Amino acid sequence: MSIPAEAFFLTPGFNGTLQQQIQQMVADGILRGRFGPGEKMPSSRGLARHLGVSRITVTLAYTELVSGDYLTSRGRSGYFVSDTAPIHPAFTPAERPHGDSVDWERIIGRRFSRHELIAKPQDWQSYPYPFIYGQADATLFDHQNWRQCALRALGKRDFEVLTADFYERDDPMLIEYIIRSILPRRGISARPEEILLTMGAQNALWLSAQILLKPEGLAAVENPCYPGLRAILGQLGVQVRPVDVDSHGASPDAVPEGTEVFFTTPSHQCPTNATMPVDRRTALLERAEREDFVIVEDDYEFEMSFLKPAAPALKSLDREGRVIYVGSFSKSLFPGLRLGYVVASEAFIREARALRAAMLRHAPGHIQRTVAYFLSLGHYDALINRLNQAYKRRRTTMDEAIRLNGLEIAGQGAFGGSSFWMRAPDHIDTDLLAARLRPKGVLIEPGRIFFAPGTAPRNYYRIAYSSIAQTRIPEGIGLIAEAQRQSGHN
Amino acid sequence: MSIPAEAFFLTPGFNGTLQQQIQQMVADGILRGRFGPGEKMPSSRGLARHLGVSRITVTLAYTELVSGDYLTSRGRSGYFVSDTAPIHPAFTPAERPHGDSVDWERIIGRRFSRHELIAKPQDWQSYPYPFIYGQADATLFDHQNWRQCALRALGKRDFEVLTADFYERDDPMLIEYIIRSILPRRGISARPEEILLTMGAQNALWLSAQILLKPEGLAAVENPCYPGLRAILGQLGVQVRPVDVDSHGASPDAVPEGTEVFFTTPSHQCPTNATMPVDRRTALLERAEREDFVIVEDDYEFEMSFLKPAAPALKSLDREGRVIYVGSFSKSLFPGLRLGYVVASEAFIREARALRAAMLRHAPGHIQRTVAYFLSLGHYDALINRLNQAYKRRRTTMDEAIRLNGLEIAGQGAFGGSSFWMRAPDHIDTDLLAARLRPKGVLIEPGRIFFAPGTAPRNYYRIAYSSIAQTRIPEGIGLIAEAQRQSGHN
Repeated sequence: MSIPAEAFFLTPGFNGTLQQQIQQMVADGILRGRFGPGEKMPSSRGLARHLGVSRITVTLAYTELVSGDYLTSRGRSGYFVSDTAPIHPAFTPAERPHGDSVDWERIIGRRFSRHELIAKPQDWQSYPYPFIYGQADATLFDHQNWRQCALRALGKRDFEVLTADFYERDDPMLIEYIIRSILPRRGISARPEEILLTMGAQNALWLSAQILLKPEGLAAVENPCYPGLRAILGQLGVQVRPVDVDSHGASPDAVPEGTEVFFTTPSHQCPTNATMPVDRRTALLERAEREDFVIVEDDYEFEMSFLKPAAPALKSLDREGRVIYVGSFSKSLFPGLRLGYVVASEAFIREARALRAAMLRHAPGHIQRTVAYFLSLGHYDALINRLNQAYKRRRTTMDEAIRLNGLEIAGQGAFGGSSFWMRAPDHIDTDLLAARLRPKGVLIEPGRIFFAPGTAPRNYYRIAYSSIAQTRIPEGIGLIAEAQRQSGHN
Repeated sequence: MSIPAEAFFLTPGFNGTLQQQIQQMVADGILRGRFGPGEKMPSSRGLARHLGVSRITVTLAYTELVSGDYLTSRGRSGYFVSDTAPIHPAFTPAERPHGDSVDWERIIGRRFSRHELIAKPQDWQSYPYPFIYGQADATLFDHQNWRQCALRALGKRDFEVLTADFYERDDPMLIEYIIRSILPRRGISARPEEILLTMGAQNALWLSAQILLKPEGLAAVENPCYPGLRAILGQLGVQVRPVDVDSHGASPDAVPEGTEVFFTTPSHQCPTNATMPVDRRTALLERAEREDFVIVEDDYEFEMSFLKPAAPALKSLDREGRVIYVGSFSKSLFPGLRLGYVVASEAFIREARALRAAMLRHAPGHIQRTVAYFLSLGHYDALINRLNQAYKRRRTTMDEAIRLNGLEIAGQGAFGGSSFWMRAPDHIDTDLLAARLRPKGVLIEPGRIFFAPGTAPRNYYRIAYSSIAQTRIPEGIGLIAEAQRQSGHN
């Protein structure tokens, strides 16, 4: 039997080449049993005419399908569905084979879904004024060199790095580059045994909390703080005490007695952007030593220091090994990479390594090696330079627009950063403000989720300049100001 | 000041192009402060001559360095280190800034490092007879098409998929392909809300255990079973009861009373390769319903069914939603991908999604989309076909060599698979056997680690044919037989 050319249609908007689309259509038809072994394919000339593509495109697609054993070529007779072509086994799943008569409420041993995550619209790119935080900006990212490094890491020489199960290990090349070229910028030196790669800073915080805290253990967190940290601690079922921050970050005196672990962002407090001065850092380390607690330092954004050099990490002052340092490539490269690292004493890293091995093994080898190449060729530093130049311009524009519109900055970061922490008049609920701004194309982040439950003022919000075009900033800020004024009259 | 060409040396064995190596040397020298702003680079002609490369190579490297703002070009005067070149801040870390005076033994809340992992030599590729399990074989993998799919997923159109923080979500395209083209082969139908992507099957098992079991909860596992599962349950501190397996897998009657979760590999028991027959499956589901326990089905290798079609998954018989199904791309693609999935009732997936979001967010977007393309173009099925043909040949050779040498097969899988479960004479300790074989270039997996502690016979081992060349098999098996005979005389 012959398969007619009319069995095939091109789909507009298909993401890929014409050749890929033809391959996909044929393979799909064979896998699903629409085309059976021995059936004759349309001639390449006939299919090309029907689809309106060049004949070589069809021929190349057919050649690929032959190498995948979907088709066989019988010389001048043409192409046929191969007798040994892959097919899907013919189990027909029942309409709804499993109902759901299990009492999950009873069976689920632990609940994890009760914690709130920051809600960001998936389609934020389609908003004209996206003051959202922490997503990559396509106009700034060095896409071309990233592709080249990724391609190199896909090469035959790196086959082992790409495919192997490393178990508890990491790519030694990336570890070496982190030690040689990232950590020194934070004043940190480390041996390979003192570093573990993680699936982003989130995973590093999670591992730290799991290892350091028993259920009912006492954790102190900054207030306000990163909501992802509160989700982790909430899931763990530990006691969480807030430490209020001021314009110099958290005060060491405010850490509650009996604290076992204090989670802090000393160099750029999240979300207020405050930098903890040296005297507080020293006092914090002294108090930790005296009361024998551990400090987890989340240093999530140190590269974005374009106004003055970032203060060295708290970890660089740590003489005892009491600080667990968390770094991330999410802000400097992109968050979808899911790559971060933790630097700490070997005894701690040993536990973190064993826990990571049991929960997920390791970050994909290809990702690790791509970052190593990107670092080794100097692309990383060039990118940071470019980001900082753009952020500096955007920040100046933000600052001017904010002042022009009479909005109040609650925290902005003397070093740089990528966001402003804002305070609306007391009567404004910024959850409502955000909802009101969204239909106008403006995305802001309401501040409530950063605060300890029960303590949350409703009138704070965060606006970032990491994803918004500079030219859009004045109008976007104007719209925020206008919405605030209107909130005043309702 | 001029930087002399003699400051640069090519490193033999550098993984990358000459152009990349030149870029890396220059960028590195600038970042480390060896070359300062305003210094003049060697002429492209001079550097090319010194390094023995073509001038265009140097020029291309310089051009890249200009676009990264490492160098500036001053027309005919040549190239200079840019005034705004990236440099590393000059914090000099103290020699050993942190000692380690913290009492980690006291501070660490939970220990994770006490569980044994399968130890595989990192350099297994250099052994002539690697009967190791579960690593990708470079001679079989479709490297070229994988690269093409990865490259496509690195394209501008997929920028969002590559870079974005998905929070708790997955790539809808991959989820769709799993639903449409993977699950039907196992007789399973599912809605997108019933699937969650995980960092390999390991991560899926980990999530399942975390959600279903409280500390001191009762888990039943097959004996022998996958050691990675025992590590998870050991870390969780739950009670673990072994269920002995025979040539038909686990017996439903042997599941202990009071079991809350039973972890099983019904279609291809790990490591014995036994397939659980339908009457046992039905009885197991009935017992689970009667006693209200949950079954986690690890279906880790179903694609490797070249002798007869794989039995449909246990999940396909599940009318109640009582089975949590775990699948993986580690065996069909490669383990370094770290991609698997779990299919279960929405109430369970909701918890797993929230837990995954807090612990790591999601698998890297680029990995997800690459697999989606590899599936959509039919490369996946072509690869499975090729693997199965090779495995079939290798298995026949294994079978013949094993019989010829008088070795005893303890379990081999009627469907196919990728390994034999072997039994040495009672007096042989296969840990010692493996150690004795290693210097001869033979890698086998001692069986002890698969058994519940205390119950472990010492004379079992696993030999896989997923990574060994067919031509090496007879000699490798001969060496194992010889070592067994020699063990008899010591």
